[in-house]
Amino acid sequence: MEASGDEVSSPGDMNLVVVGAGGRMGQTLIRTIHAIDGARLAGAIERPGSPHIGHDAGEVAGVGLLGVTISDDPLPAFAAAEGVLDFTSPAATVEFAMLSAQARIVHVIGTTGCSAADEEKIHAAARHAIIVKSGNMSLGVNLLAVLVEKAAKALGPDDFDIEILEMHHKHKVDAPSGTALLLGEAAAEGRGIDLAAQSVRVRDGHTGGRENGTIGFASLRGGSVVGDHSVILAGTGERITLSHHADDRTIFARGAVKAALWARGRKPGLYSMLDVLNLND
Amino acid sequence: MEASGDEVSSPGDMNLVVVGAGGRMGQTLIRTIHAIDGARLAGAIERPGSPHIGHDAGEVAGVGLLGVTISDDPLPAFAAAEGVLDFTSPAATVEFAMLSAQARIVHVIGTTGCSAADEEKIHAAARHAIIVKSGNMSLGVNLLAVLVEKAAKALGPDDFDIEILEMHHKHKVDAPSGTALLLGEAAAEGRGIDLAAQSVRVRDGHTGGRENGTIGFASLRGGSVVGDHSVILAGTGERITLSHHADDRTIFARGAVKAALWARGRKPGLYSMLDVLNLND
Amino acid sequence: MEASGDEVSSPGDMNLVVVGAGGRMGQTLIRTIHAIDGARLAGAIERPGSPHIGHDAGEVAGVGLLGVTISDDPLPAFAAAEGVLDFTSPAATVEFAMLSAQARIVHVIGTTGCSAADEEKIHAAARHAIIVKSGNMSLGVNLLAVLVEKAAKALGPDDFDIEILEMHHKHKVDAPSGTALLLGEAAAEGRGIDLAAQSVRVRDGHTGGRENGTIGFASLRGGSVVGDHSVILAGTGERITLSHHADDRTIFARGAVKAALWARGRKPGLYSMLDVLNLND
Amino acid sequence: MEASGDEVSSPGDMNLVVVGAGGRMGQTLIRTIHAIDGARLAGAIERPGSPHIGHDAGEVAGVGLLGVTISDDPLPAFAAAEGVLDFTSPAATVEFAMLSAQARIVHVIGTTGCSAADEEKIHAAARHAIIVKSGNMSLGVNLLAVLVEKAAKALGPDDFDIEILEMHHKHKVDAPSGTALLLGEAAAEGRGIDLAAQSVRVRDGHTGGRENGTIGFASLRGGSVVGDHSVILAGTGERITLSHHADDRTIFARGAVKAALWARGRKPGLYSMLDVLNLND
Repeated sequence: MEASGDEVSSPGDMNLVVVGAGGRMGQTLIRTIHAIDGARLAGAIERPGSPHIGHDAGEVAGVGLLGVTISDDPLPAFAAAEGVLDFTSPAATVEFAMLSAQARIVHVIGTTGCSAADEEKIHAAARHAIIVKSGNMSLGVNLLAVLVEKAAKALGPDDFDIEILEMHHKHKVDAPSGTALLLGEAAAEGRGIDLAAQSVRVRDGHTGGRENGTIGFASLRGGSVVGDHSVILAGTGERITLSHHADDRTIFARGAVKAALWARGRKPGLYSMLDVLNLND
Repeated sequence: MEASGDEVSSPGDMNLVVVGAGGRMGQTLIRTIHAIDGARLAGAIERPGSPHIGHDAGEVAGVGLLGVTISDDPLPAFAAAEGVLDFTSPAATVEFAMLSAQARIVHVIGTTGCSAADEEKIHAAARHAIIVKSGNMSLGVNLLAVLVEKAAKALGPDDFDIEILEMHHKHKVDAPSGTALLLGEAAAEGRGIDLAAQSVRVRDGHTGGRENGTIGFASLRGGSVVGDHSVILAGTGERITLSHHADDRTIFARGAVKAALWARGRKPGLYSMLDVLNLND
Repeated sequence: MEASGDEVSSPGDMNLVVVGAGGRMGQTLIRTIHAIDGARLAGAIERPGSPHIGHDAGEVAGVGLLGVTISDDPLPAFAAAEGVLDFTSPAATVEFAMLSAQARIVHVIGTTGCSAADEEKIHAAARHAIIVKSGNMSLGVNLLAVLVEKAAKALGPDDFDIEILEMHHKHKVDAPSGTALLLGEAAAEGRGIDLAAQSVRVRDGHTGGRENGTIGFASLRGGSVVGDHSVILAGTGERITLSHHADDRTIFARGAVKAALWARGRKPGLYSMLDVLNLND
Repeated sequence: MEASGDEVSSPGDMNLVVVGAGGRMGQTLIRTIHAIDGARLAGAIERPGSPHIGHDAGEVAGVGLLGVTISDDPLPAFAAAEGVLDFTSPAATVEFAMLSAQARIVHVIGTTGCSAADEEKIHAAARHAIIVKSGNMSLGVNLLAVLVEKAAKALGPDDFDIEILEMHHKHKVDAPSGTALLLGEAAAEGRGIDLAAQSVRVRDGHTGGRENGTIGFASLRGGSVVGDHSVILAGTGERITLSHHADDRTIFARGAVKAALWARGRKPGLYSMLDVLNLND
């Protein structure tokens, strides 16, 4: 446990604003900033009309008084900050990105579901803002995707079969998980194939032998499992397994804070978690 | 490696006959008998017309001359033996069982696919023969099934979700594996439910949340994997995983020889691997 | 997530008192009672002088006002309750057990480190109280120990080697974990051997071959891992692995509440989690 | 099973010589060449005086007559071949490397224990021969080492702890395994640290908390396990596990044949398995 009630922030800490501060992910971001050395909560924004407006952000997030009042006016908060953490909605994210561009600050985007038009606006904002955007903010999953691509490239389809297994809690309503598909894309990229055309997503009854070059998916559901993913490369007499195990949803918030700290002082532009991990080569 | 070219058999070794001695499983049985202390190959039978008739059983199995010639006449072999190892076909097994009954010896049956009529004849033979019959002769899988039943009973459906995962080589043509279904039956038995009615065998796309009390299956295929099985009981904040990993097809032969050694000197009757493992209570 | 702010308790809910209510485990117990159907917080006790005295137990535990004030007087709380949850210290537990005996209620004890003299007093209290006491309150670990004993008994030392692996967070200061030793005791019990005499706790450099019948331990440390344990039975060509994975420290609290619900209405006596799991045969 | 008695070699197959043809690894190499498309056994060499001289290499290796007689004269065999597979001894390997240089052919070296002087001679031979040399010829282990280095570099010591776990059969006499140390070296390389100075090889009793930046090792022993290795990077709330599982000792022979096929037609030089896997950048 890194968090502690009597933590003292240092003058050099990075000032961060959390948007969507009253939501589940916003609260997790506030607790995570509180727990990580080098980061400091400097502002907390909610949409106008939110019941959280006017309350202390730390109290809402359950870490005690932090002296930062949740507000519905992002302008003064962005002006005083060095970075923004944003897991809101596509429409809100586009607005916040333009404000980050005006303030010429860091903007970490974990929002998913952006349209091509949204992406274009975010891209435009990145001329002045230092934007880090990724479909999954966990350090581990992003690294795993890079390793999977490398492995899939090195171990060809005549010798190694690729299978992707995931397990999630019993309330999850779709399969395979988005992260399993992200890992599948990484494997397909390594193999130079089209994932959709080569996926095997169901095996039941008489299936016939496995076709070379395909990528198989399997999904387990049960209990409270936060998220386990394994990519298996199975050859003759040997197997490589590359796995990620998440114990805790805070890893996404931690990745976002890490991304903000990494982005501080960089040139404006659109970065991904691969840049943060120094894996983008 | 237990096998050794200069192994010497002892007077007290159990004399065993392998039927179907020229087939893949028959050869594995011969090599396994050769490797296990306390067992000795005393006869080797093939169907009339087999090209293996007249050859030395050890040479056919690749362990060098054993002084046992493969024959198509079971009578003298059974008369001189204390046990028979049989992974043949239902029709042949029924014939051999009657001969074992006449000779009042041990008969270990790994043959699968027997009809109700076959089973009845085997049952009749067990009045005079000491028969051990099981759908899977591996010690480990049989033990696992017992543990799964116990776990499924102790950890109820409101608190723990059961998932069964298997992985096999890329040439396997059906899913889930027979052993996965056997483990599913054990879990269903522990829960007092009907497996067929509660199985979830496919998850793809929008599945909705997991229904309490169901048993999920997932199958992976790749490389040369002999057979891995895991039964997962996933609760809130904890998970139990019971797994079996096979490196080698000889485990089925080893189980059969173990069963024969166990059965030696017992009363006639129909036993299972659970009896051999002393788990049938 | 089972907890919810607007949960309504039913008339048939079991009234439970948490002792040591202001401590980390006490707070977890309060949150867990709040989250489980059929249980209701009816009292919360702290030692005299605790700063928590006079505060609402729900607020202290972070689940909002529950209308139960933390008090330093157990008598009225025990008198009005059906059960007590106790993860305190041996001295306090002995006192509370005598009060439970007077009130003739359920007393679930997760306290560790009791002396023989303490155990004797608890035993005496169990003439009138319904006491459930266990070294580890997790349903999963208790079940696993039973399965391990059974497996170790069925798969003998000439054929299967037993290894116990555990992983915990980087702050853990001792190795192997208490639960690894508990599982080792279960394996030794199954084998009918003395664990201390047969343990191999270090392997480094020239070790020589593995001695039959020994039980090996290995410990991994890293990150925030709550607790993973695996017992491996490795034979020729096959391996059985029995594992427990904890994501979350609340499993111990959940086990305690389950134990209380199970004990309600039973005859006075000293029970263990094996009784709760119906595994004590 | 790729091997088949009636396999026909094609005119374009690569002609390979196995040195040490009568030994366990030599026989495995012969069987593997026989099983892989594109490779053909063209010669088989043993030291003068070997009882295998004059016998058919296929018969010795148990795959039936191949028409290649084991000889003690490497010169004509090397002259007629395109490549040599060599898992012999340092002294023999140095001799063979000079012959490969004269013949200007491929020479795959799996021999271990070469001195600095031996390495120098091999290096000299690589001016004319195309030499591939590696401490572990398995494709999977070599790839894993590359992935481990990358992961160790991306996930720094303040956030992620590295642990290395291996399991081998009960006859193995040392710990940790050479491959575990090779993976440790890869992790240390990624972290820019000295492995020997940062290794934790024993944990027993009161160990204190884990020191940041160290690399922990743990070894399991049991049954017939060929070789399992896992490198775990454990952070707060998440874990990455990179594993290799060997079912079968033939993977080393397969890697050697793959290396020969890859090297065919390349410029003389000293290559490693990382070059073969196209991972050396």
